[in-house]
Amino acid sequence: MNILDYSAKDPAAVLVTATAAEAIDAMISRRMGAAAIVDDKGIVAGIFTERDVLTKVVLSGKDPRKLPVHEVMTVPVLMATRGTGIAEALQVMIDNQHRHLPVVEEDGTLIGMLSIRHVLERKVDELTKQLAESVKA
Amino acid sequence: MNILDYSAKDPAAVLVTATAAEAIDAMISRRMGAAAIVDDKGIVAGIFTERDVLTKVVLSGKDPRKLPVHEVMTVPVLMATRGTGIAEALQVMIDNQHRHLPVVEEDGTLIGMLSIRHVLERKVDELTKQLAESVKA
Repeated sequence: MNILDYSAKDPAAVLVTATAAEAIDAMISRRMGAAAIVDDKGIVAGIFTERDVLTKVVLSGKDPRKLPVHEVMTVPVLMATRGTGIAEALQVMIDNQHRHLPVVEEDGTLIGMLSIRHVLERKVDELTKQLAESVKA
Repeated sequence: MNILDYSAKDPAAVLVTATAAEAIDAMISRRMGAAAIVDDKGIVAGIFTERDVLTKVVLSGKDPRKLPVHEVMTVPVLMATRGTGIAEALQVMIDNQHRHLPVVEEDGTLIGMLSIRHVLERKVDELTKQLAESVKA
């Protein structure tokens, strides 16, 4: 199991030229709490999260359909690569109070999105399987 | 360690007569991803989460300062009591894709808010302490 096994491989992602509304639409349709913001080469430029929606958009009085996402995204963004251990990634998320961590190639290209919720769901699946096997044995 | 040891004892909470903007303000100032919605006796009537902000408020075109929170809160709300085990509570949150669980007295009065993030932070603290002691030993 590496970090990609715990990640969404087709994460919510929008171009850095998108609006906040487009990023929110992507988050809703993928049922994810964050969208990666990428340039036209797929390189991660920032991350836009539910927390950004709360703190920078919804009470601002600005129309999210007219608000460029790059004005309200979080930068710089903490990221993981294929080689990052899952425990290390989880520790980084907890220490920094982040729920998401984009996973990128060495050149910064987006390849997945790790979320605390996905890690927990996978861990619960694994423990359930172990338990079922221990009952059979 | 019972469920209250893992919960915020003074959670974000607003009256059922509040606006969505007031609930969002409470979530931001407490740095929590959900607010409990309570009646004038403190009994939980619903929960309002970052997900509700995304899916029901921010793209609706409605002004959150004029939108009653009871129109956009989530009901019915899953809850825990003092006697709920932490593992059981975590399982309920994962199974239902909820990140928060209000903790209530038997009569429904709010006494805390459990969040997956708080549970993880406490668990990491415990493991760190155990590790430190095992190194000393």
